[in-house]
Amino acid sequence: MKKRIFEIISKADEGDRASKIFDGFIMTLIALSVLSIVLESFASLALKYRQVFRIFEYFSVAVFSIEYILRIWTADLLYPNEKHPRLRYFRSFMAIVDLVAVLPSFFPFISIDLRYFRMIRLIRVFRILRVLKLGRYFDALTIVVKVIKKSASQLIVSIVLCCFVMLFSAIIMYSVENPVQPEKFPNVIRSLWWAINALTTVGYGDIYPITPVGRFFASIISLVGIGIIAIPTGIIAAGFTSVINEKFDETKEDEKRFCPFCGHKLD
Amino acid sequence: MKKRIFEIISKADEGDRASKIFDGFIMTLIALSVLSIVLESFASLALKYRQVFRIFEYFSVAVFSIEYILRIWTADLLYPNEKHPRLRYFRSFMAIVDLVAVLPSFFPFISIDLRYFRMIRLIRVFRILRVLKLGRYFDALTIVVKVIKKSASQLIVSIVLCCFVMLFSAIIMYSVENPVQPEKFPNVIRSLWWAINALTTVGYGDIYPITPVGRFFASIISLVGIGIIAIPTGIIAAGFTSVINEKFDETKEDEKRFCPFCGHKLD
Amino acid sequence: MKKRIFEIISKADEGDRASKIFDGFIMTLIALSVLSIVLESFASLALKYRQVFRIFEYFSVAVFSIEYILRIWTADLLYPNEKHPRLRYFRSFMAIVDLVAVLPSFFPFISIDLRYFRMIRLIRVFRILRVLKLGRYFDALTIVVKVIKKSASQLIVSIVLCCFVMLFSAIIMYSVENPVQPEKFPNVIRSLWWAINALTTVGYGDIYPITPVGRFFASIISLVGIGIIAIPTGIIAAGFTSVINEKFDETKEDEKRFCPFCGHKLD
Amino acid sequence: MKKRIFEIISKADEGDRASKIFDGFIMTLIALSVLSIVLESFASLALKYRQVFRIFEYFSVAVFSIEYILRIWTADLLYPNEKHPRLRYFRSFMAIVDLVAVLPSFFPFISIDLRYFRMIRLIRVFRILRVLKLGRYFDALTIVVKVIKKSASQLIVSIVLCCFVMLFSAIIMYSVENPVQPEKFPNVIRSLWWAINALTTVGYGDIYPITPVGRFFASIISLVGIGIIAIPTGIIAAGFTSVINEKFDETKEDEKRFCPFCGHKLD
Repeated sequence: MKKRIFEIISKADEGDRASKIFDGFIMTLIALSVLSIVLESFASLALKYRQVFRIFEYFSVAVFSIEYILRIWTADLLYPNEKHPRLRYFRSFMAIVDLVAVLPSFFPFISIDLRYFRMIRLIRVFRILRVLKLGRYFDALTIVVKVIKKSASQLIVSIVLCCFVMLFSAIIMYSVENPVQPEKFPNVIRSLWWAINALTTVGYGDIYPITPVGRFFASIISLVGIGIIAIPTGIIAAGFTSVINEKFDETKEDEKRFCPFCGHKLD
Repeated sequence: MKKRIFEIISKADEGDRASKIFDGFIMTLIALSVLSIVLESFASLALKYRQVFRIFEYFSVAVFSIEYILRIWTADLLYPNEKHPRLRYFRSFMAIVDLVAVLPSFFPFISIDLRYFRMIRLIRVFRILRVLKLGRYFDALTIVVKVIKKSASQLIVSIVLCCFVMLFSAIIMYSVENPVQPEKFPNVIRSLWWAINALTTVGYGDIYPITPVGRFFASIISLVGIGIIAIPTGIIAAGFTSVINEKFDETKEDEKRFCPFCGHKLD
Repeated sequence: MKKRIFEIISKADEGDRASKIFDGFIMTLIALSVLSIVLESFASLALKYRQVFRIFEYFSVAVFSIEYILRIWTADLLYPNEKHPRLRYFRSFMAIVDLVAVLPSFFPFISIDLRYFRMIRLIRVFRILRVLKLGRYFDALTIVVKVIKKSASQLIVSIVLCCFVMLFSAIIMYSVENPVQPEKFPNVIRSLWWAINALTTVGYGDIYPITPVGRFFASIISLVGIGIIAIPTGIIAAGFTSVINEKFDETKEDEKRFCPFCGHKLD
Repeated sequence: MKKRIFEIISKADEGDRASKIFDGFIMTLIALSVLSIVLESFASLALKYRQVFRIFEYFSVAVFSIEYILRIWTADLLYPNEKHPRLRYFRSFMAIVDLVAVLPSFFPFISIDLRYFRMIRLIRVFRILRVLKLGRYFDALTIVVKVIKKSASQLIVSIVLCCFVMLFSAIIMYSVENPVQPEKFPNVIRSLWWAINALTTVGYGDIYPITPVGRFFASIISLVGIGIIAIPTGIIAAGFTSVINEKFDETKEDEKRFCPFCGHKLD
């Protein structure tokens, strides 16, 4: 019976109807879960259908909890050669996602103490991470993940570079603009908010330099921002190019890689 | 005679003068159609030349309708080996474009019931899709379409990824900012408007976070926005690189791909 | 003597001192010309040094005019085998630049009729095109120009695509937003201003949709904007990749392209 | 003893504990230095912990100064075959960074003359450059630096191109908008601020054209802005592609580059 449960909760094989129904049920529940978070944000709906939202939440948390427990329980069938299969599964990415998708709901729904109300609200937001549970059912993400993994070390370098440029920009702009508009640039952290918006070219327009020196530095920072965007774009583009070429080479493998007159592998 | 009509409405062969005149006429009518939509939007012009716009619209709809009927009628010459050539043509992309270009105009010009006025206005906007009819006459789109088709599956993955990040950002920002500025972030849908503007780096400046926590998350979301832009850019760049290299290889095909001393194909 | 003049006004050969002085003189004059346009825009400077600016302008126009006439005159030494060398030179890109750099200054400096004042101001702006004269002295632009030329047909397709998407967006947004905020979206042309700012992700924040339907369409248009940016970026990236690879191949040409045992060219 | 000091201040070898402690100490001091700049920007903290900030600053400047002197002193061990090893080291990039990281602190902390107060503040900002000292300890930057160096000449061309487009845009927009909104476009320099924000697609919304002609030119400039961003992105993407391919080729070198039947190097 344990083996059957494992088959059902695993991704459905061709022809396994029970497993397919289970997959469909979980995917529907995830979608409804996200929809309920969106709908609950409308104050009128949240008030009117309060009971419905609450019952649905109880129900979905119960289902996801049972699913999580079953997955832990059947972990020894997933890793048959592992010494501690449950611990191994417990630390896997999908298991952490499953746990995070359920945990926030175990915090009380309406806090007794109003001071913690906002923090709990924020924790409950992480229910949206349930969407990541869908990852189990989609293979298409693989190539994107592969490219990002392949370029990871360079992406991290470009992010660190980016953070340094931001901090540097923020400190310069704070020094220049703070004496003129202290309410907009009161400290480096607030100045950092401006720097991020300038470098990512969002530019809300709530904070901007007004002194000539400030504008001069802001101009240079904006131009650097183009480069900042160009580096990760370049890395990812290069990653996709090499991954796509690889695939392209693999498909041509059989017809071309042999010397046409002696049969040795050539290229 | 049917064969002659088919030749005329098809893309002109070298030297077929009647067909060339027909093509030119349709292209001019499409251009004038778009121009009339633009001009009609100026209230003063719309009032003054109301009759002119109306007559021109009747005329162009009549022409496009006849063109559409003729194309359906001569579909059996386009697909001579098809069993149901008209049905086949009816479902082709260009036939759907032709239909959509004409359909909105069969809705009454001025609605009797004012409540539906805006909806009908919106429907009539789709007359602009007539521009797509021009696609028949331009070959240059092919390479762009080819690249997009080739990268379609990855582009869809990156769009889905993008939508998830947006929804996630919107829910977080709603939770954080709603208590402080409820009129700007009244619900997740409005918060989604902010998230899209932040992630696409448009940043109108009508909605932005004002709490430190909100700014912190907004900063992270903006940085993620760079990545979100980098992925489709990378995919499309990789697509163009491989398509261009392919073409490059093809042109060099004859001069290089043979073993110089035994004549076998080499590479 | 004509041959000597031709040598002097041509790009300096190694060791030709007169020619080098001439090049340096023209380049300095171009730089000062641009500087004077910038300085003249400061109202106080323009008033105070009015005579200086006027005399400098007269002087530089005189020099550039003489240079232009000399280049036309010596054109037969540049194209010795051409039938109409002067006509040929007259239509070359650099000759047109030289002409455009001088022409605007032959319009009267201060218009008698105030109605044409602004138009003449605008024409005088084209004096800035003198900077293009510098192109004669820089070789580094070649690779950028080469890439753009190579990708020209695809870039044009992507620009046409872009223009269509903009027009389409503008017409939709006009239909949706005009009834609610007629002063912001009075006609399709003004709506086009919004569309361009949204698709290029500039987002000044002077015009933005406020209706839910408008925001929905604006969101989709912003997302399409990412793609619109991705296509030319992808094209140019692919162009640079293939140009750089080509150069890379050329440098390795000699050491690798021969069959190591029979001497025939291999790859 | 000099040799031992040289070993300690150089990047730590495996197993050299004293050197590792020294590296860790310097890295911690750099991090604390940056943190102190950020914290000092909060007026309340700066006032309350004024003495702490001052003492920490004295301490870190002392340490960095001693480090700098020791590095200069042991330069002859770094370049044993050089004639003037200290001069050689003095002009190296890292030595300049070390000097710049220390110099600003030798300016008086609070200026006697209030007129120079802001300038001194700005100079003290360059203390943030201490972060660059970290570069000594990270190898991961190498590939990014390599790509940027490889594409340097093209990047410079694209930056020059960019500057020209900006100046040109600024002059056009000044001519068009100055008569209508003289307070927003008072001169070309202010207009340049607009041009940079439009071309980098930041768009704060503090300055934007309001005349139809101005909007027409601004639209074209925004579209050109996409191209301006596309060129460096394309260059960097191409750079990464070729660097990554190179590395890829190197790893496959041994197994593939030899003719399988005669042993000669093939490709």
